[in-house]
Amino acid sequence: MEIREFQEMIRRIYEERDRERGRERTMLWIVEEIGELSQAVRKDDVENIGEEIADVFAWLVSLANLYNIDLEDEVRKKYPGHCIRCGKVVCECDS
Amino acid sequence: MEIREFQEMIRRIYEERDRERGRERTMLWIVEEIGELSQAVRKDDVENIGEEIADVFAWLVSLANLYNIDLEDEVRKKYPGHCIRCGKVVCECDS
Repeated sequence: MEIREFQEMIRRIYEERDRERGRERTMLWIVEEIGELSQAVRKDDVENIGEEIADVFAWLVSLANLYNIDLEDEVRKKYPGHCIRCGKVVCECDS
Repeated sequence: MEIREFQEMIRRIYEERDRERGRERTMLWIVEEIGELSQAVRKDDVENIGEEIADVFAWLVSLANLYNIDLEDEVRKKYPGHCIRCGKVVCECDS
């Protein structure tokens, strides 16, 4: 599935709810979901981690929709196929 | 760009660094990036928000790689094109 296609799907399903909620409360939802993901990592609850990552991703996309940000464009700018700091295809930056 | 293609790209560039860092410290990086995104939202720094969302997304993908989770599979399960709670293509769940 294309990143852009996923963003459009989330817009179709949730944009109305996202607009009602607003940007700042959507950010708070992301923080809440990060809490759930952190807990799953802390407990090494591998069953749950995939679902929680998907949830955080979907909430990020909702936030992008509220700012009319095209996530795929942003991803291509920041992650063009090599590390943008060291320029290598396998990152060699200092830790 | 496909979600799966992005995940493979992040694996190619960063897997070695991700494995060295480990799961729990990768989760802490995500939390740190969420802090940057929260700040950009709080300041309404629209210039920055897209980049910060892309960063959180890339770190989520790194975490998925460390658990050998296919993010696209997880996304399709949880977001099949309608709200999985109310079943509607435009979500009608209570707030």
